[in-house]
Amino acid sequence: MGIHTYFRSLNDLERIIRTPGKFKFEEHCVSAHSWKVVQYAKTLADIEEQHGVSIDWKKLYEITSSHDYGEIFIGDIKTPVKHYSLELRSMLLHVEEAMVEHFINENIPEEFKDIFRRQLREGKDDTVEGLILEVADKMDQVYEAFAELQRGNTEKEFIVMYRYALVKIKNIDLHCVRYFLNNILPDIIEEGIRSPFDIRKITEEALSQ
Amino acid sequence: MGIHTYFRSLNDLERIIRTPGKFKFEEHCVSAHSWKVVQYAKTLADIEEQHGVSIDWKKLYEITSSHDYGEIFIGDIKTPVKHYSLELRSMLLHVEEAMVEHFINENIPEEFKDIFRRQLREGKDDTVEGLILEVADKMDQVYEAFAELQRGNTEKEFIVMYRYALVKIKNIDLHCVRYFLNNILPDIIEEGIRSPFDIRKITEEALSQ
Amino acid sequence: MGIHTYFRSLNDLERIIRTPGKFKFEEHCVSAHSWKVVQYAKTLADIEEQHGVSIDWKKLYEITSSHDYGEIFIGDIKTPVKHYSLELRSMLLHVEEAMVEHFINENIPEEFKDIFRRQLREGKDDTVEGLILEVADKMDQVYEAFAELQRGNTEKEFIVMYRYALVKIKNIDLHCVRYFLNNILPDIIEEGIRSPFDIRKITEEALSQ
Amino acid sequence: MGIHTYFRSLNDLERIIRTPGKFKFEEHCVSAHSWKVVQYAKTLADIEEQHGVSIDWKKLYEITSSHDYGEIFIGDIKTPVKHYSLELRSMLLHVEEAMVEHFINENIPEEFKDIFRRQLREGKDDTVEGLILEVADKMDQVYEAFAELQRGNTEKEFIVMYRYALVKIKNIDLHCVRYFLNNILPDIIEEGIRSPFDIRKITEEALSQ
Amino acid sequence: MGIHTYFRSLNDLERIIRTPGKFKFEEHCVSAHSWKVVQYAKTLADIEEQHGVSIDWKKLYEITSSHDYGEIFIGDIKTPVKHYSLELRSMLLHVEEAMVEHFINENIPEEFKDIFRRQLREGKDDTVEGLILEVADKMDQVYEAFAELQRGNTEKEFIVMYRYALVKIKNIDLHCVRYFLNNILPDIIEEGIRSPFDIRKITEEALSQ
Amino acid sequence: MGIHTYFRSLNDLERIIRTPGKFKFEEHCVSAHSWKVVQYAKTLADIEEQHGVSIDWKKLYEITSSHDYGEIFIGDIKTPVKHYSLELRSMLLHVEEAMVEHFINENIPEEFKDIFRRQLREGKDDTVEGLILEVADKMDQVYEAFAELQRGNTEKEFIVMYRYALVKIKNIDLHCVRYFLNNILPDIIEEGIRSPFDIRKITEEALSQ
Repeated sequence: MGIHTYFRSLNDLERIIRTPGKFKFEEHCVSAHSWKVVQYAKTLADIEEQHGVSIDWKKLYEITSSHDYGEIFIGDIKTPVKHYSLELRSMLLHVEEAMVEHFINENIPEEFKDIFRRQLREGKDDTVEGLILEVADKMDQVYEAFAELQRGNTEKEFIVMYRYALVKIKNIDLHCVRYFLNNILPDIIEEGIRSPFDIRKITEEALSQ
Repeated sequence: MGIHTYFRSLNDLERIIRTPGKFKFEEHCVSAHSWKVVQYAKTLADIEEQHGVSIDWKKLYEITSSHDYGEIFIGDIKTPVKHYSLELRSMLLHVEEAMVEHFINENIPEEFKDIFRRQLREGKDDTVEGLILEVADKMDQVYEAFAELQRGNTEKEFIVMYRYALVKIKNIDLHCVRYFLNNILPDIIEEGIRSPFDIRKITEEALSQ
Repeated sequence: MGIHTYFRSLNDLERIIRTPGKFKFEEHCVSAHSWKVVQYAKTLADIEEQHGVSIDWKKLYEITSSHDYGEIFIGDIKTPVKHYSLELRSMLLHVEEAMVEHFINENIPEEFKDIFRRQLREGKDDTVEGLILEVADKMDQVYEAFAELQRGNTEKEFIVMYRYALVKIKNIDLHCVRYFLNNILPDIIEEGIRSPFDIRKITEEALSQ
Repeated sequence: MGIHTYFRSLNDLERIIRTPGKFKFEEHCVSAHSWKVVQYAKTLADIEEQHGVSIDWKKLYEITSSHDYGEIFIGDIKTPVKHYSLELRSMLLHVEEAMVEHFINENIPEEFKDIFRRQLREGKDDTVEGLILEVADKMDQVYEAFAELQRGNTEKEFIVMYRYALVKIKNIDLHCVRYFLNNILPDIIEEGIRSPFDIRKITEEALSQ
Repeated sequence: MGIHTYFRSLNDLERIIRTPGKFKFEEHCVSAHSWKVVQYAKTLADIEEQHGVSIDWKKLYEITSSHDYGEIFIGDIKTPVKHYSLELRSMLLHVEEAMVEHFINENIPEEFKDIFRRQLREGKDDTVEGLILEVADKMDQVYEAFAELQRGNTEKEFIVMYRYALVKIKNIDLHCVRYFLNNILPDIIEEGIRSPFDIRKITEEALSQ
Repeated sequence: MGIHTYFRSLNDLERIIRTPGKFKFEEHCVSAHSWKVVQYAKTLADIEEQHGVSIDWKKLYEITSSHDYGEIFIGDIKTPVKHYSLELRSMLLHVEEAMVEHFINENIPEEFKDIFRRQLREGKDDTVEGLILEVADKMDQVYEAFAELQRGNTEKEFIVMYRYALVKIKNIDLHCVRYFLNNILPDIIEEGIRSPFDIRKITEEALSQ
């Protein structure tokens, strides 16, 4: 049809649940996750600007808000599958891109095709905007896993997720990462003291890797 | 505490359900709504740019993503209450602003206070960005109501919501509104032909008001 | 229409969730809350009768069962909003009353109008029935908050709710309040010993205020 | 323990769902049903009073609010099971009564035992209050079944339930039943015209039985 | 109708929830329970075969997969009701059998009637297949109760259920029971060390009964 | 650990929802689907036996009950992804097999390894048991899609699913397929006459392909 098909499809992401198959005290849909990534990224970019870094806000807007749109076509494939082998990972990425391209060709009017191709591309490149997206995406994994651990969820997957996301974040060289590690993470640990898990220890192990 | 308190609070909007008290085949939380508004607004702004209008993307990013953040403090008060009287409406708006200001004073570090005051302000002003936000917000009401009508929801509230949102949109003088009326709305009507309601007629009545 | 419109509207309260926006292990709708208030009040009134107090059962029936009916029109506005200022509180109360009055005028047949005006009025006056309603309403907050604390819910709102409701109850001078404090509250504390929170201490602090 | 055990048990009825095993667009818990029965009964009794009938409000309060409390012990056994044979029915009733009696003996303090025995008894006797309870209970089946039929639920059970409840109501000789048949039922039929089922015809067949 | 009516009815078991009325962090429907019983039984039978016991796989298939089909007609009646008296228990069993027989007579074509009568019979006899079904059924109660206790569920019913199921299992004289007690139960206890309940102690008490 | 890890993992399939991302009036988890496949297959095999075909019940038991166990590791990847290319499909199948193998190596005791390898293998081979599994699996897609179409679900995916599954079934040469087409499908069509979709026409188009 046209832009209507795209607008209508956005609703689908409310029905794709993150971390499928694991017990969770609270479920999160991909739309809500996407919104939180948009919000984190905004503040992270503000921190970069405070340190004199120049931000392309249009690009940041585009890549953060659409970064999981492709899951409409492939679903929330489990992380271990994505990382099973470099070959499979690149093939899955290729399929996702091909399906997005197919969707654009079928539905998006000619005058918007280039815009949508740019917006729905994989945004995690090495620019400051791409790196901020990566940090914001992983930060939501930290918060999702933290909330489950804090409530006493004993699924090991959430310790793995918390640790993995922290390791990813700490290895990115941005002002906002340093702010997160120095000013936000201590508050998370502080809030987690009532958890049956030793969140401080899990955090320190992750940071020392 | 600090930014952590703000980041943690974002999760609350996943638990505030829109149009409380009415039967719905599908519920929407405020976070998912916020993300869809961000996505609609992006495409609406693209249309404006195609017509040579200049967009302040940083501002658009800020006001679309945070436009319902205040609902964390006041909840999703029913629309008829908000519109009961100009006096009540302005008082509720005042309370919401005061609670946001209180939150910023208590939680946000000094160096971010001005940024958060700007981001969490009411964004629906008369600039092109403010108007796009208004269109995108109402467009989500159109889509939410449409999906219920299409599935045969007999609650009158959804006809009222669909009509009211359309009237609001059509009275805003933007290129993207004309695009919506000419290129997107016909596809909505077309898709709605199987509804037990005459969506074409409801639409035409709204547009002729 | 008529009484049918009123009967049909009762169903709406099953879709309004209490304490919106906060994480809960178990959600409660306003209908279920209303039923529990009816049940508590019945036993509280039995206790009063045992001490020779005379109860107007028709009045107690009317005010307990309908005490939250007005939420159909205004939703479950967050407590901090209601208490933001005396001015706002009285304005919200005025709006709720005006909307109930409007509903009665539009829907209720002439011969029932006075009955419905009496039944749907704010029932928390200074009579023994009005005070019992207040105790029963707060008692359900005690039980709702207690169940969350017992299961390890770390949202601070539930400690605040538990404490606030206890303070309200203990300041009401009724035989049934003394019974509650001496015979029921100790059992609550006893049952809460496995909670990660020190429910005894929270209780004692509230009672000593 | 004591009254606490009773108050705490009330919450259990929020987790017992009516008409288990059948597809429903909207589920109802026994607590919400109980509250609606309390509300219907209040208006039905008002109608009786308007015709000069004297109502024992304390009794009506007691029997309507507690009429399904016994389901805490036996669950929502399917109607066809209850009606399988007079022998089974009376045995199930006996078990329910015995379990309620056991609960009272174990948990309720001596001075309240008689009160609870009276309140938790089967209330559907031949007094005007007992008959009003029967009408109110069946009226909620009418509304539950109607809402499903109106939304296009094709489970035959809801036609059976609607019809069966109507037949039960129409055979009770009360002023409020005549009011229901003449003033409320026509509005239900009117509201149901958009249903894929011919609700008028189903209604007329039931009334002519 | 025919086999279609039977196939269609299978869906009903997805809407019957186990242990109704009790707070659960995670609900289980009868279908999911039935599937897990099928899976446990398969492995239990494998263990018997390893010890040289001969298994009738067709019979095991039939009785495990259909063992709770009768709940479509009677619902998930609470365990204390079933065990209230031998007389009631046998009467309920009789009703269930009569309703299954009635269903077969009404719906199943002549050439399948005997097959269905055999498949939908009560399968827990004294053959090795019947005993394996009993072990597998109780094993799912162990796992359901364990998962709730591990997450801190304070409803006493789950301790009772865990203990009762263990006692039932340990008294059955099968190779697979010994394997369960020696090789599986220790892992359950090990996994439960973070529970606020002392699962080891509860287990040992049950085994020593 | 051991068999405990396997038994515990079965619960995960209750949290993987079929057809993720599409609006459904009723959701189905993989466990409930698996149970229904076990049940359909049993009756399909009975039909084969009636025509003198010999069934290996142990094999049928093993392959039907475990046919979707691998989804624990890869999730419910969307069908269009699986069928995107033969290359991707075989790679995904390879990953699933490798993850199952890894799970067996890590968790299953030596003496059970071969049994689990056989049970958790892809079961859809060309034997009568493999073909019955294929029919039963597709039959559940027919029933799932039918129930949504019957209730007026306008997502095109369900028409596609219904048609695709029927085409798959009709091309399998088994006695039970002929029974399904001649004796069960007509009842499905008959039951679907109230659907807003012309289920008869959709069915006939599929069968004539």
